[in-house]
Amino acid sequence: MSAKKNLPKKLDDISKWYLALIDQAKLADYGPAKGTMIIRPYGYAIWENVQKALDTEIKKSGAVNAYFPMFIPNSLFAKEKEHVAGFAPETAVVTHGGGEELKDPLIVRPTSEMIMYEAYSRWISSWRDLPMVINQWNNVVRWEKRTYPFLRTTEFLWQEGHGAHATHEENMDRALWGINTYAKIYREFFAMEGVIGRKSESEKFAGADTTFTFESIMPDGKALQSCTSHDLGQNFSKTLDITFQNKEGANEHVWQNSWGFSTRSIGGLILVHGDDNGLKIPPKLAPIKLAIIPVLGKKDDEVLKYCEKIKEKINNFISEFNGSVEIFADTEKSFGWRINDAELQGIPLRIEIGARELEEKTITLSFRIPDMAKKVSRFEDVDSFVEENLKLVQNEMFKSSQKMLKDMTYEVESYEEFKKVMNTTKGFIKAFWCENSDCEAKIKEETKASTRCMPLGSEEEKGKCIYCGNEAKNKWYFAQAY
Amino acid sequence: MSAKKNLPKKLDDISKWYLALIDQAKLADYGPAKGTMIIRPYGYAIWENVQKALDTEIKKSGAVNAYFPMFIPNSLFAKEKEHVAGFAPETAVVTHGGGEELKDPLIVRPTSEMIMYEAYSRWISSWRDLPMVINQWNNVVRWEKRTYPFLRTTEFLWQEGHGAHATHEENMDRALWGINTYAKIYREFFAMEGVIGRKSESEKFAGADTTFTFESIMPDGKALQSCTSHDLGQNFSKTLDITFQNKEGANEHVWQNSWGFSTRSIGGLILVHGDDNGLKIPPKLAPIKLAIIPVLGKKDDEVLKYCEKIKEKINNFISEFNGSVEIFADTEKSFGWRINDAELQGIPLRIEIGARELEEKTITLSFRIPDMAKKVSRFEDVDSFVEENLKLVQNEMFKSSQKMLKDMTYEVESYEEFKKVMNTTKGFIKAFWCENSDCEAKIKEETKASTRCMPLGSEEEKGKCIYCGNEAKNKWYFAQAY
Repeated sequence: MSAKKNLPKKLDDISKWYLALIDQAKLADYGPAKGTMIIRPYGYAIWENVQKALDTEIKKSGAVNAYFPMFIPNSLFAKEKEHVAGFAPETAVVTHGGGEELKDPLIVRPTSEMIMYEAYSRWISSWRDLPMVINQWNNVVRWEKRTYPFLRTTEFLWQEGHGAHATHEENMDRALWGINTYAKIYREFFAMEGVIGRKSESEKFAGADTTFTFESIMPDGKALQSCTSHDLGQNFSKTLDITFQNKEGANEHVWQNSWGFSTRSIGGLILVHGDDNGLKIPPKLAPIKLAIIPVLGKKDDEVLKYCEKIKEKINNFISEFNGSVEIFADTEKSFGWRINDAELQGIPLRIEIGARELEEKTITLSFRIPDMAKKVSRFEDVDSFVEENLKLVQNEMFKSSQKMLKDMTYEVESYEEFKKVMNTTKGFIKAFWCENSDCEAKIKEETKASTRCMPLGSEEEKGKCIYCGNEAKNKWYFAQAY
Repeated sequence: MSAKKNLPKKLDDISKWYLALIDQAKLADYGPAKGTMIIRPYGYAIWENVQKALDTEIKKSGAVNAYFPMFIPNSLFAKEKEHVAGFAPETAVVTHGGGEELKDPLIVRPTSEMIMYEAYSRWISSWRDLPMVINQWNNVVRWEKRTYPFLRTTEFLWQEGHGAHATHEENMDRALWGINTYAKIYREFFAMEGVIGRKSESEKFAGADTTFTFESIMPDGKALQSCTSHDLGQNFSKTLDITFQNKEGANEHVWQNSWGFSTRSIGGLILVHGDDNGLKIPPKLAPIKLAIIPVLGKKDDEVLKYCEKIKEKINNFISEFNGSVEIFADTEKSFGWRINDAELQGIPLRIEIGARELEEKTITLSFRIPDMAKKVSRFEDVDSFVEENLKLVQNEMFKSSQKMLKDMTYEVESYEEFKKVMNTTKGFIKAFWCENSDCEAKIKEETKASTRCMPLGSEEEKGKCIYCGNEAKNKWYFAQAY
């Protein structure tokens, strides 16, 4: 790891800052094929912590993990018309295998509905087989024109869960479970606030009846669709004839849902929490929870021994949090360089140890998040002290994300106001919309802002569409999307 | 889950038995694209337990996880001549992306040496960057003519670790760490014995100086190459110019190694341990450690309540073993059917609970492995009792695998004897070989037996090649390979 080298200021040019930070903190690198990304060990360690948290929730809910092939024969892929229309333009196609041209080319999965449901159609025959809820952690490919590390890459990692149910109600419950679980992971682990809502007809998943989303706002005022969950209705089950015999002995088509959470989330984490000094990783996801930085000088051996004792004392509980304590003791690097390095890496807490701390058997805790004064603890209490402050940091980071969301949400009454926001700060715009896709398209064309979602639980109001003035029942969230 | 339906006898037709068992125990299914496999939830749960065990060892060794793209531009893939010659015939090729024909087609990784080392060449500049040891858990594709679930599929899952080191010695240590760690996982988790050895020149990995292997014998006398670890020397570092400045300031090429362990291992587990009644999963890998099977009748409620109490008491410690306790209480199925079902699934231990056990507050333990008499315990001791017997079963299964390896290894002095073994029982044949690839090819042509490996730690002897009679220094293991 190397400390930061002229990291651009975040608010001067967020895109430059983002790319430089990913490079300098060694989160990711470019792959040689267009639009592909290498997730480097430090970035991948964050993803592993996300996986542990989310996989636990998925299993707790009764879903099971499995693995389906990534190659979907084109003849199968093409069966569901809306689905293929949405995804075909962005697929990668294997036309040759084992030196021969294939009669039926293979689509590299952009998502696994078709390949999984072909199996579901063979595995499901009775109501006893339902619900069938299977999840997989895998790679998918979507050919993108403009790519951006983590946020939009040709290949990315995610989990995709797929439920088949006997009733529409049960199916909707699982689709909602999906988006609510994702929101919980974002809030509790990523310390990121967002809006849970429903997508418009034009923005929903190709093949879904309803798409739910968790939308977050980024510091540049653009929104990130952070994950989605879909009620697929009976669209796929009718195409693939996935039926079950109900308790009365009649055949019915199953109801289906799918939900996915990807490495895109790490892009959101970087953008929301990072600052001019580097990353800021919420304690629950940080691969390194605490950096111990010795002042190296006359009493090196003793100081280092003291650092080791602190590390040992903390390590027992900290490993439960899927992370480590690291001593930054590279003698070739200055004390200041090492502090910068810990900041660049976004390590939540820092303990600096010199001769005085050694003598007094104390430790001084510094915080990665700004505006937190240093705190002192006695050596005996260091483990509970660190644990308590990790929790504090997690909470503080979430609070600041909540504040950002609030500060960057604008409720507007006119299209003039709407355009003014889009021409200045950008952000989430709450506005009445008549749900006509023509207005939606025009607004996007004129302002770059697309509908992001209608918040779940919104109550109907009486209003007029911001664009055409016709009757509108709900305020929608608009923003320019990442 | 459904209990077995006329499972063929293992020794009558092992191939038929193997395929029927995979189907009936719901371990895997076929994908729609040729040679691909769906790993169903029960099979995947075994793989997850393998991953946990192996990932722990990998991280303990200082390696870190990451993720590299699966698409390798053909121009990059073709750079290492031996490597490409070995893998090109079995690749899948993406020629179209986003609706356009690609100028530089993309190879779907059959292994990741080229894509990873291209990055290593950019990341490594000084001795301070070494060793660099990165692992990934991913999917790879090798276009196979004849496929077989788990053992040889077009797409499979594995981990591949890749080390770059400053010296050949250190590099060799890591390559040996690889094969020794795999052997440990096979022995301690899979309860499978095998031979650690070195591959012949013709059988080694395309691009390696030396390939190490762990070879197991299957009940039909064929050998399974269960995993491999390679000393790649400086072959790739010279092709891709991966150099580092040593402590003296001079530039040197790094030394490299790679090692992989795949879902093929689950095929070995099924073949070695399964029997006419179904799977037999070693306790450390079993997704379900214990089946509680109530005798349903007059006192259902009380019996079920007692089952729940047993489950609860055991569950606390058993979750540490990455598995669960399940109560088989489907009232629509007979007691016998449910026992068959638990056997089919290879659950190591079974507790049958009826009115008597309820009254006496005892439990009776039955074993999935044959020839173990039932045992009785008091309710109070059931957790430690179960733990103890899980360990016992793990040991007994390993012992029986050790015995099988011993029984199926034949040391022969003449080619006549060699052919006799191959014409009858098959198995591992230990025989002197001159290490001339012509003899090796002739033996394979005439008997189907290829060289499997020369055991590590073999001491040189004086002997004559079983085929040509010329001088030979070592006895090699031969067998027909899976």
